[in-house]
Amino acid sequence: MPLPDKIAQMSAEPLDFYFDYSSPAGYVASTRIDAIAAAYGRGVTWRPVLLGPIFKVTGSAPLLSVPLKGKYAKHDFMRTARLNGVEMRFPSSFPFSSVAAARAHYWLSDHDPRAAVRFTQAILHAVWVEDRDIAAISTVLAIAGSLGHDEAELEAALSSQPVKDRLKSEVDEAMARGVFGSPYVIVDGEPFWGADRLDQVEKWLKTGGW
Amino acid sequence: MPLPDKIAQMSAEPLDFYFDYSSPAGYVASTRIDAIAAAYGRGVTWRPVLLGPIFKVTGSAPLLSVPLKGKYAKHDFMRTARLNGVEMRFPSSFPFSSVAAARAHYWLSDHDPRAAVRFTQAILHAVWVEDRDIAAISTVLAIAGSLGHDEAELEAALSSQPVKDRLKSEVDEAMARGVFGSPYVIVDGEPFWGADRLDQVEKWLKTGGW
Repeated sequence: MPLPDKIAQMSAEPLDFYFDYSSPAGYVASTRIDAIAAAYGRGVTWRPVLLGPIFKVTGSAPLLSVPLKGKYAKHDFMRTARLNGVEMRFPSSFPFSSVAAARAHYWLSDHDPRAAVRFTQAILHAVWVEDRDIAAISTVLAIAGSLGHDEAELEAALSSQPVKDRLKSEVDEAMARGVFGSPYVIVDGEPFWGADRLDQVEKWLKTGGW
Repeated sequence: MPLPDKIAQMSAEPLDFYFDYSSPAGYVASTRIDAIAAAYGRGVTWRPVLLGPIFKVTGSAPLLSVPLKGKYAKHDFMRTARLNGVEMRFPSSFPFSSVAAARAHYWLSDHDPRAAVRFTQAILHAVWVEDRDIAAISTVLAIAGSLGHDEAELEAALSSQPVKDRLKSEVDEAMARGVFGSPYVIVDGEPFWGADRLDQVEKWLKTGGW
């Protein structure tokens, strides 16, 4: 069997889309990333992570808790969402834990990656548009249930060690790849941080780099 | 005398452009801000600040010194500059002090604001294109001298208390207005942080807000 053409093989790789459900910019990026990739025949691997352990390593504080910057950032997120026509309400409870949602994503992903993405998009819509409390396991279960998943099976999975370990290893691997914030997109090895960089992601897909 | 029309008066206000000479994004913004404002008949008040004392208040670390993030940020600055055709070399000595340059700016500004901007643009070009050491007072004096300013007079001013106090009060006032990073642009009371927001600055000037 001949070796596959390396370039063609590379260009078929999906984009890696890292985000935390509790990141406003991650939500904004989630509304665009699939369409951007699809326009260039590419898929997207959705990879929820937890900024908490990542910020411990980088010594960063959650953006919205930084004096001066936090107040501006919230204003900026909403202003940018309005400008771009992204439906967005700031959650009344913030920051919040995204552990249950992230564990559920990977558990679903092992059975059906597409179903996991649909679940994650429903979670993001729930928190960033409907202001639902996705830190609560009951909300995560209800959303999974509404998509046809077995709530009891998922509930058991969420507290099982393999599922806990799975998320932990995803976060560790993300850090090993340099992920320090949300969203963080990797295109053929090239990293892009922030919803503000999606235009460059698109240009990179189109041109192969500059 | 009738009261001036409030809207017309507001729209005639110059933009406030806050930056630190040692900020890569501040440099990038400096290459575009005057043209953006001029397209809408507006001037720009250039206001160099020091991120050091500001970061002490916000508890922020210099971007390039943050683990993971720092390495990415440098890569991102150069990639974005290439994409936008901005001439830029990363200074071989970084970070560096911008105190002398900032003091010189305000001292010149009190005599001739336009001359201060020309001086500041020359400083920014020296460090971000020519890789000159603008932390050294001798470089600051040489650049001012090449623009026709009296080097001896400037040298005396740089260590005088009123000039030191002037910069300090500018930094304090900036923080009082919410400035926490570089660049930071205020348009009719609306704040925009980051070179990535210049497109929104332009849209705000065009539309008056959204």
